[in-house]
Amino acid sequence: MRRALELAQRGPAGDANPRVGCVLLDRHGDVLAEGWHRGAGTPHAEADALSRVPAGAAEGGTAVVTLEPCDHTGRTGPCSLALVEAGVRRVVFAQPDPNPLAAGGAGRLRAAGVEVRTGVLAEEAAALNERWAAALALGRPWVTAKWASSLDGRVAADDGSSRWITGPEARADVHRRRAEHGAILVGTGTALADDPALTARDGDALLPRQPRPVVVGLRDVPSGAALRRHPEPLLAVRSRDPRQALAAVEDAGATSAFLEGGPTLVSAFLAAGLVDEVLVYLGPTLLGGGRLATIDLGVRTIGDQRRLAVRDVVRLGDDLLVVARPAQEE
Amino acid sequence: MRRALELAQRGPAGDANPRVGCVLLDRHGDVLAEGWHRGAGTPHAEADALSRVPAGAAEGGTAVVTLEPCDHTGRTGPCSLALVEAGVRRVVFAQPDPNPLAAGGAGRLRAAGVEVRTGVLAEEAAALNERWAAALALGRPWVTAKWASSLDGRVAADDGSSRWITGPEARADVHRRRAEHGAILVGTGTALADDPALTARDGDALLPRQPRPVVVGLRDVPSGAALRRHPEPLLAVRSRDPRQALAAVEDAGATSAFLEGGPTLVSAFLAAGLVDEVLVYLGPTLLGGGRLATIDLGVRTIGDQRRLAVRDVVRLGDDLLVVARPAQEE
Repeated sequence: MRRALELAQRGPAGDANPRVGCVLLDRHGDVLAEGWHRGAGTPHAEADALSRVPAGAAEGGTAVVTLEPCDHTGRTGPCSLALVEAGVRRVVFAQPDPNPLAAGGAGRLRAAGVEVRTGVLAEEAAALNERWAAALALGRPWVTAKWASSLDGRVAADDGSSRWITGPEARADVHRRRAEHGAILVGTGTALADDPALTARDGDALLPRQPRPVVVGLRDVPSGAALRRHPEPLLAVRSRDPRQALAAVEDAGATSAFLEGGPTLVSAFLAAGLVDEVLVYLGPTLLGGGRLATIDLGVRTIGDQRRLAVRDVVRLGDDLLVVARPAQEE
Repeated sequence: MRRALELAQRGPAGDANPRVGCVLLDRHGDVLAEGWHRGAGTPHAEADALSRVPAGAAEGGTAVVTLEPCDHTGRTGPCSLALVEAGVRRVVFAQPDPNPLAAGGAGRLRAAGVEVRTGVLAEEAAALNERWAAALALGRPWVTAKWASSLDGRVAADDGSSRWITGPEARADVHRRRAEHGAILVGTGTALADDPALTARDGDALLPRQPRPVVVGLRDVPSGAALRRHPEPLLAVRSRDPRQALAAVEDAGATSAFLEGGPTLVSAFLAAGLVDEVLVYLGPTLLGGGRLATIDLGVRTIGDQRRLAVRDVVRLGDDLLVVARPAQEE
């Protein structure tokens, strides 16, 4: 199962489909083939693995999968059936499928006389697709809001200059996290003021996976903008409404969005309760002045504060990263 | 020397004098007496220890002191002479006296034929009186600025309510640190809006040492204010100038000031480069709105940013404390 989880990680994060890995063993327990899912519209991990072995080779064997085999005919047929037809005798999977549309594979397998074992490394498997599962439960894409500020909450000096508040380690961390999301969002204000590339990079090199760039707001993005040269096509949402932005992200096939600013858009998402995780990168500096990380969050009195639960505090070079999520109501 | 350091800690922090401890040993190395300095105007640690033994008992003995014995006649006579007169044969001290007025004790002791050893636990001894020594070098009291804010840098909701942004562990930490300073400063705005007690407490109980409360600004503090019931008399500085406030602190015999706000006063100190340490208590919450921890720090462009060096990051319950000092210019 560890190997199957490694395989799953090769798949795209933030996709409409979860990341899944599969290892096929023959009747003696030797590895026959490996497979993983490459994203919506491509074969599932089980089908990918089965496609790599000659007909009949999997008979009497075992399939080790990170997610319950689907029992659903979408763009591909149900994996439960494919495994039964291949003569697999035993299926071990980590996480039951949280998608009611696709679940039921375990039942069909058992009904066909296949031995089914579940729960192996279930937590690791669930963590791998946490944002995908949350999006399924929420009925909208998962939103991670990120900003980099001084210790007094400013994202720039008064003249708008902000390079750099945080150091190279923090910026590299941002790029890694960008690549883990299906889409990346900024407001038109930020697009026009900063002309960001919004690519996920390692140094100057593009990372293998790029989030879909999305610009939210009523103004035009100029044809010469860096965003227009992004490897994924730019999606322009002509609205200031966070819900409309998320609907567009979902329509584009992404289940997670990395919200990078500016303060107006981030504040609109926070005020609407549409942020699932906050990443605050704090540079060891003070700026004062009027360039704030957040604007109005609809908090009039302290009882309205948007309380968070800190999940992690990471030191990145001279900077601090605070990872937090909205605190559960008591 | 460890014991002498423990004794030194019984003295008052933030006083005009450093904290010093002394252990007297007889000629056989057995402890004769312990002493410590209780603050300006009281006997020095060596004199305190000597006063506890009969005449002649210290003859041929050893004095273990955390700071070089003074060679200066102020309100008390020089300790170097007192040790020589008591017949002490050996003096071990941790830290050379950084005060040019009082230094020279080691030389006088050696000249009188006393064996002198220095440098034992010197770092620990220096740390004990770090703020005092820094004030000596700066020619003004040491300033620690403290605020508690949300992750987006707000110290209150729009209506001014702020109880609570941080939790009980963070607030207890503030009280401990108040007691380590000679004075505690707020602006008249904070004094009038919050009516703070500015005492150093453990729960409801007053800690043994209280910083001198100082209010800075042009407005009056009402006769019924909590500050008027502080165990130490209120010092009102009728000015908005940080330098004048520090001169008043110094005149009151304090070598360190704990600056608690509000944003106007803290920003004035920061803008003037008069803050030596910053304590930012971050509560895991977002507030937005207009109640900022800092206002204008004179930073127009990013090159002017007030860069800090982080010395410590401490998790206090759900909160974070960032301890930082102005970064050294390169």
